[in-house]
Amino acid sequence: MLFERIESEGLAHYSYLIGDQREAVVIDPRRDCEVYIEKAYSEGLRIKHILETHRNEDYVIGSVELAARSGAEVWHADAQWDYEYGESVEDGQTWKLGRLMLRAIHSPGHTPGSMSYLLHDHAGAPWVVFTGDALFAGDVGRVDFLGMDRAEEMASLLYDTVFNKLLPLGDEVIVCPAHGAGSLCGSAIAERLWTTIGLERRHNPKLQYTAETEFVAHVARELERPPYFRRMEKWNLEGAPPLGSLPAPKPLSPDEFTEQAKQAMVLDTRMELSFGSAHVPQSLSIWLKRLPAFAGWFLPYDQPILLVSETENSVQATRYLIRMGYDNLAGYLSGGMLTWHTAGLESKSIRTVTVQQLCHLLDEGEETAILDVRSDEELEKAGRIPDAQHIHITQLPGHLGEVPRDRTVYIFCGSDVRSMIAASLLQRGGWTDLAVVLGGLAGWNSVTCTLE
Amino acid sequence: MLFERIESEGLAHYSYLIGDQREAVVIDPRRDCEVYIEKAYSEGLRIKHILETHRNEDYVIGSVELAARSGAEVWHADAQWDYEYGESVEDGQTWKLGRLMLRAIHSPGHTPGSMSYLLHDHAGAPWVVFTGDALFAGDVGRVDFLGMDRAEEMASLLYDTVFNKLLPLGDEVIVCPAHGAGSLCGSAIAERLWTTIGLERRHNPKLQYTAETEFVAHVARELERPPYFRRMEKWNLEGAPPLGSLPAPKPLSPDEFTEQAKQAMVLDTRMELSFGSAHVPQSLSIWLKRLPAFAGWFLPYDQPILLVSETENSVQATRYLIRMGYDNLAGYLSGGMLTWHTAGLESKSIRTVTVQQLCHLLDEGEETAILDVRSDEELEKAGRIPDAQHIHITQLPGHLGEVPRDRTVYIFCGSDVRSMIAASLLQRGGWTDLAVVLGGLAGWNSVTCTLE
Amino acid sequence: MLFERIESEGLAHYSYLIGDQREAVVIDPRRDCEVYIEKAYSEGLRIKHILETHRNEDYVIGSVELAARSGAEVWHADAQWDYEYGESVEDGQTWKLGRLMLRAIHSPGHTPGSMSYLLHDHAGAPWVVFTGDALFAGDVGRVDFLGMDRAEEMASLLYDTVFNKLLPLGDEVIVCPAHGAGSLCGSAIAERLWTTIGLERRHNPKLQYTAETEFVAHVARELERPPYFRRMEKWNLEGAPPLGSLPAPKPLSPDEFTEQAKQAMVLDTRMELSFGSAHVPQSLSIWLKRLPAFAGWFLPYDQPILLVSETENSVQATRYLIRMGYDNLAGYLSGGMLTWHTAGLESKSIRTVTVQQLCHLLDEGEETAILDVRSDEELEKAGRIPDAQHIHITQLPGHLGEVPRDRTVYIFCGSDVRSMIAASLLQRGGWTDLAVVLGGLAGWNSVTCTLE
Amino acid sequence: MLFERIESEGLAHYSYLIGDQREAVVIDPRRDCEVYIEKAYSEGLRIKHILETHRNEDYVIGSVELAARSGAEVWHADAQWDYEYGESVEDGQTWKLGRLMLRAIHSPGHTPGSMSYLLHDHAGAPWVVFTGDALFAGDVGRVDFLGMDRAEEMASLLYDTVFNKLLPLGDEVIVCPAHGAGSLCGSAIAERLWTTIGLERRHNPKLQYTAETEFVAHVARELERPPYFRRMEKWNLEGAPPLGSLPAPKPLSPDEFTEQAKQAMVLDTRMELSFGSAHVPQSLSIWLKRLPAFAGWFLPYDQPILLVSETENSVQATRYLIRMGYDNLAGYLSGGMLTWHTAGLESKSIRTVTVQQLCHLLDEGEETAILDVRSDEELEKAGRIPDAQHIHITQLPGHLGEVPRDRTVYIFCGSDVRSMIAASLLQRGGWTDLAVVLGGLAGWNSVTCTLE
Repeated sequence: MLFERIESEGLAHYSYLIGDQREAVVIDPRRDCEVYIEKAYSEGLRIKHILETHRNEDYVIGSVELAARSGAEVWHADAQWDYEYGESVEDGQTWKLGRLMLRAIHSPGHTPGSMSYLLHDHAGAPWVVFTGDALFAGDVGRVDFLGMDRAEEMASLLYDTVFNKLLPLGDEVIVCPAHGAGSLCGSAIAERLWTTIGLERRHNPKLQYTAETEFVAHVARELERPPYFRRMEKWNLEGAPPLGSLPAPKPLSPDEFTEQAKQAMVLDTRMELSFGSAHVPQSLSIWLKRLPAFAGWFLPYDQPILLVSETENSVQATRYLIRMGYDNLAGYLSGGMLTWHTAGLESKSIRTVTVQQLCHLLDEGEETAILDVRSDEELEKAGRIPDAQHIHITQLPGHLGEVPRDRTVYIFCGSDVRSMIAASLLQRGGWTDLAVVLGGLAGWNSVTCTLE
Repeated sequence: MLFERIESEGLAHYSYLIGDQREAVVIDPRRDCEVYIEKAYSEGLRIKHILETHRNEDYVIGSVELAARSGAEVWHADAQWDYEYGESVEDGQTWKLGRLMLRAIHSPGHTPGSMSYLLHDHAGAPWVVFTGDALFAGDVGRVDFLGMDRAEEMASLLYDTVFNKLLPLGDEVIVCPAHGAGSLCGSAIAERLWTTIGLERRHNPKLQYTAETEFVAHVARELERPPYFRRMEKWNLEGAPPLGSLPAPKPLSPDEFTEQAKQAMVLDTRMELSFGSAHVPQSLSIWLKRLPAFAGWFLPYDQPILLVSETENSVQATRYLIRMGYDNLAGYLSGGMLTWHTAGLESKSIRTVTVQQLCHLLDEGEETAILDVRSDEELEKAGRIPDAQHIHITQLPGHLGEVPRDRTVYIFCGSDVRSMIAASLLQRGGWTDLAVVLGGLAGWNSVTCTLE
Repeated sequence: MLFERIESEGLAHYSYLIGDQREAVVIDPRRDCEVYIEKAYSEGLRIKHILETHRNEDYVIGSVELAARSGAEVWHADAQWDYEYGESVEDGQTWKLGRLMLRAIHSPGHTPGSMSYLLHDHAGAPWVVFTGDALFAGDVGRVDFLGMDRAEEMASLLYDTVFNKLLPLGDEVIVCPAHGAGSLCGSAIAERLWTTIGLERRHNPKLQYTAETEFVAHVARELERPPYFRRMEKWNLEGAPPLGSLPAPKPLSPDEFTEQAKQAMVLDTRMELSFGSAHVPQSLSIWLKRLPAFAGWFLPYDQPILLVSETENSVQATRYLIRMGYDNLAGYLSGGMLTWHTAGLESKSIRTVTVQQLCHLLDEGEETAILDVRSDEELEKAGRIPDAQHIHITQLPGHLGEVPRDRTVYIFCGSDVRSMIAASLLQRGGWTDLAVVLGGLAGWNSVTCTLE
Repeated sequence: MLFERIESEGLAHYSYLIGDQREAVVIDPRRDCEVYIEKAYSEGLRIKHILETHRNEDYVIGSVELAARSGAEVWHADAQWDYEYGESVEDGQTWKLGRLMLRAIHSPGHTPGSMSYLLHDHAGAPWVVFTGDALFAGDVGRVDFLGMDRAEEMASLLYDTVFNKLLPLGDEVIVCPAHGAGSLCGSAIAERLWTTIGLERRHNPKLQYTAETEFVAHVARELERPPYFRRMEKWNLEGAPPLGSLPAPKPLSPDEFTEQAKQAMVLDTRMELSFGSAHVPQSLSIWLKRLPAFAGWFLPYDQPILLVSETENSVQATRYLIRMGYDNLAGYLSGGMLTWHTAGLESKSIRTVTVQQLCHLLDEGEETAILDVRSDEELEKAGRIPDAQHIHITQLPGHLGEVPRDRTVYIFCGSDVRSMIAASLLQRGGWTDLAVVLGGLAGWNSVTCTLE
């Protein structure tokens, strides 16, 4: 028997490969799907079925790609929508898998046609339930995808799913959701790497609202929705274009890069401190590890993308971008910024200051603008900077005009990664006097400014 | 048959693993020697002999380590010196290796007792010669290690070695030296990845001096000698302390790091741009890829070393340091500078300017100091900056006092990596107004300043 | 947070590496412990504690080895015995691990001082319990290690452990035992790769005996105990000799092998069919994948071991043997049997017959001996061969005399792997007319002999 | 700079990846071409050109596959033939590669339009020559591909190529041919892993015939030509069907396997001893390591292929078969012969005897047939078995009728691998009394039979 959880870091997406006696199933595969093929092969398993828990909105599902390469059949949840590939799952449908058995449980709420899949072990006992985006460790799925006007209706469906379908499976059943901590699909997913129905029943904050009205009141909230979700929804209905193998972006000389940059978006995935020191003019800073979380907010689909990165990281960046449908990678700056500078090309920088330095300036009465790009939730939890302007990083592109241009803008986030994203957006917009505060609010809270 | 060249990047050191019919020989192994053990094992070979071409001075030879782990016998060249391990090679000595045969050829010049090893193929034909530091692609070994008063004598020995012992082996014989391009052991090693006696006879500039006096005149030069060479010479006679396996440096929290930093040297191996944006106060910048070339000039042996790096790079940094005998690694800053700043700790920065920005300042008549840390050779080849002060990076620690403190010091090297090393040395010495010129002389030569 | 289960195949041994915020714990490490060091290192974790659930008897615990290489502290359960290393755990003792916490729960039964460790998540909720050999998926630990005269007493302790200490933790708690299906430490461990308290409460057959007397009656059974257990018990008290790194056995020529074989035990780990065709005289057949299960029954500790294997498998064989304390590996036959035969050396073979061929012979009335080496349990479950003599493979060395020498002995097991072990033992004892029945009882049951 | 030789084991085929400053060239790529893409990518190189030295006949060239995945241009030699892809190379044509340069040298003889490529180093010196199948270490290419009536003409062209074009490049130039020892493209390629013009001039036996007539007389020989060459020639003109990624053969249950075997050829790649003990009826034995050498003689293109192997080997077998155009892999027996037998299915065996046992039989006067399947060359070199019938293994399919059926046929080859191939061919043809002599002629020569 094989039971593997495959995590796609950054998106905190979990997919699962389950196999027994030459047969395997993959639940919610990702698009760069060689991992399933290789693991299945090395265990002597043939991938027979691909099960989707719902029409995903936060990544390109790999069903079409994996089906093309493995010969497996694709099974959709959310049959109310029109798919251009695969078959629709029906509530109660079962799949044999060697000595194991999977059964579909209609689990609406996150989407109208979400499915959970209950895995019975070889003795027939209910063992593991794959809950998709219905139930997470410490959270439930968001219900605002059909619009806020239908959020309460969806929350009510989710209440029924959770309390009348999932919890009754028994405290002992293991819960395998589609996301872990860090996903955009649940605002408060806990860092409990493996969980059970009982652990959720007892410790999941949302599941403490046992009255439906209370549950609905707390769950029917609007959450942010990055623009790229729309493309994901479309592609996951149509089936994404096949890749074959992971594309290798082309190495470009500074001259070639400069030429192509005229039509392209330059994405710099280096750490924020490197970006601060020097970067290609007009480039956007998103540190590699945060790329899955932020690319979808700021990267367009209608322009080619050029990468600036440490060489070793281009493969990973490509993987991340492909998972979000950014297939139009035009190349990367070969040799990195060192080559750029030795070619005598001009670069830009963005200043950094430590919290202490900023405190000192503030103490001395310097007139400054402080821009805080954290979310409302973070403001509540970690506190506010006095007199700071607040625009959440995700909303910045539409609210640039509100940021002052006549003073140094000191930018805060939780640490300093998002501040550099913000700084790069502002610099692209023409701002010249910017400073990223190192350590951000965490640093601010660790020192004492004498501010009064 | 197995014939593998193993390169230790950075030091540009080549070692060789040769095997036939269950028996293998390693020539000049490095200290992190698992590579030989694993390759030999996977080919069904037992390492029987370890041959040293000379008492090495630029890295810790792995003979003791490899012998302990493989049971092989160690054979020294330079028998005139007292070793605390192994056996001495005699001129003409032979080793059988399956159907192959190796023969020692006394090849003095670089050291008095250097040995080359001629490999005969299974048909008995002279095939490959391992020349150690006697003959490289495009260069010959340096002869100044016994002091400049004996350099001509050694150059004369080397003349005899090259012209009367190596060249007569025949143009067709393949030459396998102990170093490739980039080593400190030859000033002008060519980027000819594989070479032959004939290629050297025809294209090696030093071998065009066919008259002994001429050859001696061109070869008997004094080259730089980093302080760490002395420890290498000592350890390579005594046998270096055994490692067992590559040490894994400890992750340290910012507090632990701060505490230990009081007695330690902080080494920052991140790229120069990251270092410029922010770094732990008093830290020394040497970018990972240049660590083998520069650690030996600036890192002390009598202090523990603390690392700041991108996590993925600690293993490689450890490997590089161990190869140069820096066994006293106290740990690394877990989470890197991000953690440092979120803990509210203070950091330093070093400003960077592009060549264009500097030109502009100069054009505007700003009074500046320009410090050029390139070598004399580079000055000759790539040209000089008008009015620049010149102190080679390796000599900077002893000449800090000559650098002005009353003006901004703009630092130049070939690109900008060494400039950041220099800037970190100056900042440790108390200089506060420093700027690294991005792209360095390469950048300078790529743009046109209107300077007059 | 890091939560990894590391499986040692063959022994079906599970160890665990848990980490949070730079700190890690390993529970019941194995002796070839580089896996923990590498994973911890790549996650930026320092292994601080090594927790043993009990004094293990079926493998060499890696505590001493791992402590020497990581600097971690070792914590013993079974404090009633005298250890020559580490500290004793007390009931209720806790360890902080970043934001996580572990608490010891005295869990006697399998041994008097067994400990379970309850892991609380970062919110303080009881999350995972590491039960060692007290509770498995589908089984409980054996209680016969102190002798059958104390088995009921131990079973009674185990009853208390399971029903009064573990089950009360709650159905939702995840159970992480020290073994999976296939271990000698529980006779009936289920193939439920992850399990929970509730799954065990409902589906573990032993836990259905909720009355203590009934539980004791079913659990206080004597199970087989391979002779190597005694050495494991001793080494796990004394601390096993340190390895440093995994030893690489030496390649030997046929002549060297022949010479060394005079004093050594030759172990052939090839698949049983290869062994049947030809093998070194006097060699013992144990197929690599069954080595962990059977080496301890048949391999002596007082003789060097020589391997015959497919080259690729020597590393794995070494790993398996080291885990059971067989440190005295003298080498392996380089080039395998092909080299043996091309050197003109004599080999032996053991005939194989298919079930059909045997049926035919039996139908024709040939007078044969049938030796069935399966366990009593298997006889009961899968059925018996008419007129077969039954000696369990593990008991064969002491009962060779009972096997007839005057007729062909046809050997049966479940398939044919153990039959070849048995055949090799008999051939070493002088039997010459042996045949392994291919497919064994599984094959027998798949065809119909007309036997009457 | 990057200079890599990639060996395809078994075929002893060498391809080369050369790169400098972001640009790379591949010479004679193989079909499973991910190796070039990955190495080029990790060095920051873009594969710009694919150079073929000639229309290959012994493997599927990977030009089309690699071009599709890298965007490189394909350049053909042998422009006299009609290609359906790529561009034709002209004598003297050059390609710039960073600071390096390649120049085509028309080198006919092996084929009419063969090209060699001379690589100049960054200083412009002739450095390495890629000779394709014109010149090998210790041999020259065969000249019989256009038929024996044109062999002397081709040998004469080859004489001109070698003596007037390649040797004049200078003794010091490194020679990189398309094959190493073990290839079918040269009968006597030496095990000199790296070679030079001078080494060949002095030690290559064919190059000692400095007079053209003598050279022609020795070179214009007819060599064996496996039937698969015809498909290779066709595919290498047309361009082989694209693969995308290496196909993963399907795991089949014994029942599925049996069903598919009705139309398929069963290929057993296990070692010959495993095959001897038991194998699927009608299967063909070719040990994995000899698959590249023998598949092309015995495997048909018009039937699906089913594999029996040790699981780990299916990937490698797939790779080997794909390189020879056997794209029609239907699946493999999951679980191997163990599963086959436990399913109660019938198998066949082939007896093995040691040389000693055979000697004993011969001494006792048993009337036997001895079949020796070695080549004429081997008979001359290693000697003959008295009274043996000689049919070279490659000719056996057409000469089965000559093998006696009325006596035990004892089969000899050099060791015993090819004997088992022969035995499997005979068994498929209905022979029942067969025995493979272990150790073959090597074993025979190592012992003394008292035969008189």
